[in-house]
Amino acid sequence: MSSRIRFTPVVTALPATVPFVGPEAIERRRGARFAVRVGANESAFGVSPRAAEAMREAIARASWYGDPESFDLRTEIAARHGVGIDNVCVAGGIDELLGLTVRMLIEPGMPVVTSHGAYPTFNYQVAGFGGDLQAVPYRDDRIDLEAVLARVRSSGAPLVYFANPDNPMGTWHDAGPVAEFIAALPEDCVLVLDEAYGQFAPESTKLEENVDDPRVVRMHTFSKAHGMAGARIGYAIAHPDLIEGFNKIRNHFAVNRVAQTGALASLRDPEFVRSVVAQVAEGREEYMRLAKDMELHALESATNFVAIDAGGDGARARRLLRLLEDREVFVRMPGVAPLDRCIRVTVGTREERARFAERFRDAWAALG
Amino acid sequence: MSSRIRFTPVVTALPATVPFVGPEAIERRRGARFAVRVGANESAFGVSPRAAEAMREAIARASWYGDPESFDLRTEIAARHGVGIDNVCVAGGIDELLGLTVRMLIEPGMPVVTSHGAYPTFNYQVAGFGGDLQAVPYRDDRIDLEAVLARVRSSGAPLVYFANPDNPMGTWHDAGPVAEFIAALPEDCVLVLDEAYGQFAPESTKLEENVDDPRVVRMHTFSKAHGMAGARIGYAIAHPDLIEGFNKIRNHFAVNRVAQTGALASLRDPEFVRSVVAQVAEGREEYMRLAKDMELHALESATNFVAIDAGGDGARARRLLRLLEDREVFVRMPGVAPLDRCIRVTVGTREERARFAERFRDAWAALG
Repeated sequence: MSSRIRFTPVVTALPATVPFVGPEAIERRRGARFAVRVGANESAFGVSPRAAEAMREAIARASWYGDPESFDLRTEIAARHGVGIDNVCVAGGIDELLGLTVRMLIEPGMPVVTSHGAYPTFNYQVAGFGGDLQAVPYRDDRIDLEAVLARVRSSGAPLVYFANPDNPMGTWHDAGPVAEFIAALPEDCVLVLDEAYGQFAPESTKLEENVDDPRVVRMHTFSKAHGMAGARIGYAIAHPDLIEGFNKIRNHFAVNRVAQTGALASLRDPEFVRSVVAQVAEGREEYMRLAKDMELHALESATNFVAIDAGGDGARARRLLRLLEDREVFVRMPGVAPLDRCIRVTVGTREERARFAERFRDAWAALG
Repeated sequence: MSSRIRFTPVVTALPATVPFVGPEAIERRRGARFAVRVGANESAFGVSPRAAEAMREAIARASWYGDPESFDLRTEIAARHGVGIDNVCVAGGIDELLGLTVRMLIEPGMPVVTSHGAYPTFNYQVAGFGGDLQAVPYRDDRIDLEAVLARVRSSGAPLVYFANPDNPMGTWHDAGPVAEFIAALPEDCVLVLDEAYGQFAPESTKLEENVDDPRVVRMHTFSKAHGMAGARIGYAIAHPDLIEGFNKIRNHFAVNRVAQTGALASLRDPEFVRSVVAQVAEGREEYMRLAKDMELHALESATNFVAIDAGGDGARARRLLRLLEDREVFVRMPGVAPLDRCIRVTVGTREERARFAERFRDAWAALG
């Protein structure tokens, strides 16, 4: 039967492309597994042993739905952030929270401001609800806060996004300029401040909580420093009105029961996260030294990855990426110029870094 | 700062109510745990030991995102259903799939047909996208297929929903009438056929797969017979055009890695599901005998729960529910008349059923 499905105009107009192809799909295409998986900014340092133990135990009760209010976890998060439980929304990762945020604020045709080359999944969500994405160029590989703010004002956008520290470049802004950006926002514009990589960043980036300001929703994840990407859990901290908005539309039973248990245990194991952050810092330094040894430029990073300049345009970086793929190394790269002169390498374990270094030198030699 | 957040008109108009309050929230309100949790149609028979083992092992790799294509799982599902992999979409449970379906088909104000008292989460999703929900009464505690079809035609709705077997009544239609319903659908209307409880139903309900028909999307879950409600995983079987629609808007990395592993292992353990189905059938019979002993009417069920008529109106059933709550028993009941004369009791383990029976007799005596 020929299909007469009447999709909405927004969905009809969407491309079939996806923000990210998973490494497993590339492995299937290549017919071989990657030997070094340092492309998706997953933590090489795994899950806290306490969280792992809690999750293994929770499997026995996987037949029960998770608490739709994530009460215990939200209580712990609220205490750690010094906010109220009504300032916290737990969901299946930041990606889900981005979708909910766009859905509650954006109607088709409304402007939304981001940076050209920033997190593709945010763009995917904006497109998915018919928003008019306005992308401001980076400046010196950093989010250009002044230009972003100017675009918010000129477009009248009710929603603006950036990550601090930034993905995919790893660069950052200190808390001062971010606070100034927020203070200067129009009163009816909401900033999504994506802090997925916040734990890896210097103290100077730590922004005070201010849940009295309804213009900011700060997003956090257990996918990075906590090493729980596969468990799908993250949270938003915001003004209660924004949290109520999430609660009106979110899928209330969406958060995995085992993940809730694991996240709670991981929050209660701060020593583990500190150790991950220290190991990541060490790994970043190693990547910086490797680049220097090879006379390449790598960007100072406040995340668990490093952007390495391949010394040319996007085509050159893409060739380097393919040469790495041929050597069973999974890395990713920014999607647009001029960021796409770089490849983005996640900090691996010491052993993974050694394997990466060897294969990277080899790929570089082949690149010519 | 007073909030000037400009939510969309659809979100602004939404109530702050949720489709289901979790048992944990009731426990917190009561200040005590439930002794018998038979209210959410969770499986009392747990997870397949093979799935549990696979999930415990998968915790070690919880730091990696799950395959966004759920390739291995979709391959297994496709083989078992005799369809192609392009006919399968895996997501974080049927609830997520319901939201995606509404989102891709419904614009604000468009009619959507369901039954009055059917699955509240479908209604929640329709409201959440501004759809105009048109609810047709049940007939003799069953979905009234003729009346539903008539309403589809008269309203011009592009989307209609029912579950077979039905939730919350447990009743069912054989495959013949369902196939006739589908054949009679307008060509631009999509039926969501929710088969969450399909494994518990008699052979006569088994509907042939027909993924050439773009008017049907059949939804399945690992939350019921597979006992994996807390893992959040389910799937849709449909025409490739519908699956492509899902792929254009779904959160690609949403499905928990551990859940994918567990679901695959559970599919490969059909003996376990058969055993669960047999135990559920035994438990249903026990509930039927209990009702008969007490001179109550209980509805024949094709699911893992039984609706027991409290012998009066909704207020009486609600009183019975509270009396059960006082006795640390968690059950739920339909939300609207005349279905709400019943309480809905999930089949527990033999021990849970014994505890339920004792407390139910006691609550019934108190009800007077």
